[in-house]
Amino acid sequence: MQQDREMKELPYKIFLEEKELPCAWYNLRADMPVKPAPLLNPATGEPVTSQELEKVFCSEGVRQELDDEHPWIPIPEPVRDFYRVYRPSPLVHAEFLEKLLDTPARIFYKFEGNNTSGSHKLNSAAAQAYFVKAQGLKGVTTETGAGQWGTALSMACAFFGLECKVYMVKVSYEQKPFRREVMRTYGAEVTPSPSETTQVGRKILAEFPGTGGSLGCAISEAAEAAVTRPGYRYVLGSALNQVMLHQSIIGLETKAALDKYGITPDVIIGCAGGGSNLGGLIAPFAGAKLRGEADYRMIAVEPVSCPSFTRGRFAYDYCDTGRICPLAKMYTLGSSFMPAPEHAGGLRYHGMSPVLSQLYHDHVIEARTVRQTEVFAAARDFARVEGILPAPESSHAIRAAMDEALECRKTGRRETIVFGLTGTGYFDMKAYERFNNGEMQDLPLSDEVLTESLNRLPRF
Amino acid sequence: MQQDREMKELPYKIFLEEKELPCAWYNLRADMPVKPAPLLNPATGEPVTSQELEKVFCSEGVRQELDDEHPWIPIPEPVRDFYRVYRPSPLVHAEFLEKLLDTPARIFYKFEGNNTSGSHKLNSAAAQAYFVKAQGLKGVTTETGAGQWGTALSMACAFFGLECKVYMVKVSYEQKPFRREVMRTYGAEVTPSPSETTQVGRKILAEFPGTGGSLGCAISEAAEAAVTRPGYRYVLGSALNQVMLHQSIIGLETKAALDKYGITPDVIIGCAGGGSNLGGLIAPFAGAKLRGEADYRMIAVEPVSCPSFTRGRFAYDYCDTGRICPLAKMYTLGSSFMPAPEHAGGLRYHGMSPVLSQLYHDHVIEARTVRQTEVFAAARDFARVEGILPAPESSHAIRAAMDEALECRKTGRRETIVFGLTGTGYFDMKAYERFNNGEMQDLPLSDEVLTESLNRLPRF
Repeated sequence: MQQDREMKELPYKIFLEEKELPCAWYNLRADMPVKPAPLLNPATGEPVTSQELEKVFCSEGVRQELDDEHPWIPIPEPVRDFYRVYRPSPLVHAEFLEKLLDTPARIFYKFEGNNTSGSHKLNSAAAQAYFVKAQGLKGVTTETGAGQWGTALSMACAFFGLECKVYMVKVSYEQKPFRREVMRTYGAEVTPSPSETTQVGRKILAEFPGTGGSLGCAISEAAEAAVTRPGYRYVLGSALNQVMLHQSIIGLETKAALDKYGITPDVIIGCAGGGSNLGGLIAPFAGAKLRGEADYRMIAVEPVSCPSFTRGRFAYDYCDTGRICPLAKMYTLGSSFMPAPEHAGGLRYHGMSPVLSQLYHDHVIEARTVRQTEVFAAARDFARVEGILPAPESSHAIRAAMDEALECRKTGRRETIVFGLTGTGYFDMKAYERFNNGEMQDLPLSDEVLTESLNRLPRF
Repeated sequence: MQQDREMKELPYKIFLEEKELPCAWYNLRADMPVKPAPLLNPATGEPVTSQELEKVFCSEGVRQELDDEHPWIPIPEPVRDFYRVYRPSPLVHAEFLEKLLDTPARIFYKFEGNNTSGSHKLNSAAAQAYFVKAQGLKGVTTETGAGQWGTALSMACAFFGLECKVYMVKVSYEQKPFRREVMRTYGAEVTPSPSETTQVGRKILAEFPGTGGSLGCAISEAAEAAVTRPGYRYVLGSALNQVMLHQSIIGLETKAALDKYGITPDVIIGCAGGGSNLGGLIAPFAGAKLRGEADYRMIAVEPVSCPSFTRGRFAYDYCDTGRICPLAKMYTLGSSFMPAPEHAGGLRYHGMSPVLSQLYHDHVIEARTVRQTEVFAAARDFARVEGILPAPESSHAIRAAMDEALECRKTGRRETIVFGLTGTGYFDMKAYERFNNGEMQDLPLSDEVLTESLNRLPRF
C-alpha cells in the first residue's frame, strides 16, 4: 500500500532540471582495482605512448584515454551548453510495459534517443569535437557504418564550428541516402569508402574493384586522412576509454533521477557492441559496487551473431580489420571475424571496450545473448505500449529487460529493472519491414567459423 | 542588467511537470464573438445535423465539432495517460539561434516533434482514438499523404486497442516505404489508394488506370470504408473544429510555461496547412485577445505555392477534392486547386480551418507567405545551432520567426517571439537533398491558375 502510494507520485518521465546536469564525467577506471590493460603499438608490441597517440587524437583526448587515476573529469562549460540542447534525458517509468507483462517488477529506461542523431552517440561527439576545437585545430575525420555516429559528429561539429569529414561504408552510403543527407545538412563532407581520396582507399579499389566497402576499410581511410591533413584529428564513437568517460553522463543522470525518488535498482541492462552505451550507463553503479558501497547485477546483452563477451576470448587483438590501429586487451571474436548480416549494425563489432572487458573478466558484470527475431518482437511490443519506436540495438536491452520482468512474474519478485534505451529506429525500417513480413531469420554463429577466426588472433 | 540576470536563470528548455499537464482542452469558439459558420450538407445546402455527422464520426467527436458554447472540455484520464508518454512538451529558449542572428529579440519555440509520430498530430489522434474506443466501436479509417497523421493515428490505436485502416496516397506508399512500415509496426493496415477495396477506388482505377492517387481520393475511400464497415468511424487529422480543440493543449502548455517565468509574447507564429498546429498554439492567446485581456500579434505562415489565407477567398467550399464531405466556410483556393509539388506536403491543402478563417477575416490574426528555398535555408541554419532537424512544414514558422528577429536587429526592438516547431524532418531527407544539391526551386502561383480554380467555387 505504502509502495502503491509511492508509485502514484512517481511521474512517468523523471526529468532532471538543467541545473542538475552533471558538472563532471566519472572515470570508472580510477576505482577499478585491476585496470584495463594498456593499448599496444602494433609495430613494437610496447604500450603506446601519449606522443604516438597525439598524432591521431587531440591532446585532451589522449590525456583522457590514458588517465586511470582521476575519478572526476570536469565537463567544460561549452560542452555543458551543448548538452543542455538535449539533456538531461528522461528516465521513464515503463508503467505501460509493466502492465502489458503483468509483472510485479518495476521497469525504468533511460531514453537517449530524443535528439536528432537519434542516439547516445552525441554525448561523446560533443566532447570530442569541443576538445579538438579548443586545441585550435581545424577539423576531424571519422568513419561511419549505418550513420548514427557520423550524424552525431556532424551535429557537434556544426555547433562548435569544426570541419567534419566522414568516410561512410559505400553500401550504407548508397542504401541509406537519408542518413547521408542529414550529415550533409549539418555541413559534413561525406565520402563513400573505399574512395580515391586516400592511399589505402586507392589500394583497396585496385585490389577489389566494385567493392561495397567495410567499417575496417573506412577506419583506415579516416585515420589516414587525419594524419595527412594539417590541423585534422581522428575521432571514434565507441570502445575507447575516453568514449566510456563521456558516456558516463548517462549513468550519472540515471543515478541522480533514481536517487531523487529513493529507488535502488536490482538489475541494470544495456546492449553492447563496442560498449559505449553500457559502459556509460553502469559507470557510477559499477563504481559503487567496486568500492563495496552497493551491489547491483549488471548485464551486457549482445546478439547471438556477434557474441564478443559470451563466446569471445579475453586477449590482445587489433581494434580494426585493417590492423593499423593499436592493439587492445579485450573480449574479441578476432579482428578477421565477419558477423552475419545482423540488423543491429551498431552491435556488429568483433571486440569490446577494454574497460568492460576487464569488468566482465573480474565478474563485476554479466553477459547474455539474444536472437534477432525475439529482439524485434520485443521492439514491436514495446513500441505499441510505450510509444517509442526503438532502434534494433536498443531492443536487445528491451528483450533482456522483458525476460527479467517475465521471470519476476513467475517468481513473484518485485525487482527494480533499469535498462538503457539508446536510440530510435526511424532509419531502420527496412529491418522492421522484414520482421513485419515474417521474413527475418536468426543468425546463429557456428563453432567452426568462430574457431577459425579465434585461431588468427595475434600473439602478444 | 535586470533583464540579463533573468535570462541567466531561464533554462534552455522549460519543461512543465506532469502534474502541470492541462486537465481540459480550451474551446476558442466559446470566446469568439463571431462564430465560424456551420458546415453545410452538400446535398441540401442546409447546416449538417449531428444525426448526419454521427454516421461518419463518433458521438463525442460530433458533440465537440458542433460545440460553440463551452470554453473548457475536460480531457479524459486515459487520454491524459497517453499524453504523459510524450507530454508536456518542451518550450525551448532558442538562445543559440538568437546568438546566430545577433538579435535583441528573445525567441522561444514549442517543440512538438519529440515523439515517434514526429509531430503534433498525436495530440488529436489520441483523443479521437479514445472517444471511438469509449463508444465501444471497433476501429477507425483515415487517409494519409506523407504519413505523419497516419503514423500518429496508428500509435494511438495501438495504445487504446483499436483497429486502424489507413488509406495512403499510392505515390507516397511507394516512395515512403519507411513511413508505411512504422504504421504497420504499430499494427495498422495500410492500403495504397486508389484501391480495389472500395467502390470509389474501383471507379477511379477504372477511369484512370495506373494513377498514383491523391489525398482527395484517399479521403473518399477512407470515408466509404468507415460507413460501410460495422463498428468503424472516420477520423481526420486537421481543419476540423474538434482537431483545433484537441490541439489547444499546445497553446495551453506554452502559456503555462511562459507564465511560469513571467514572459509575455509579442508575436506568436505558426505554419498553416489545415491549421491544426497554429489553431492549437494560439488558442489561449487568441482567447485572451478576444476577451480584451491582452494583445498579441499572431501570424499564420503559408507557402507561396499554396496561399489559402493570403490569396484565397473566404467562401463556402468543399473540404475534399472528391466533393463528398460537407462544405465549410473558409479561406480557400478552390477544391479543384492542385498545388505545385511543394516539399512541405502538410501545407498543400486548398482550404483552412473555419475557426482560423473567421479569426483572419476578423483581423484577429495575420498571415504571410514564404518561399521554399528560403524556408530550407532557415531549416539548415536552425538545425546547425539548435540541434533539431525540423520538418519542412515547421520550417515555415522558423523562417518567419527569423525574419521577425532580423527586423528587431534593425530596429533594436526587444520583441519576444514564440513559434511552433511542429515536428522533425527525418522522413523528408529527399527534400533536404534537393536543397543541399542546389536543385530546389521556388514555386510561385500564377494569377491565371488561381483564378481558374476560384472560378469553380460552388455557390452557396
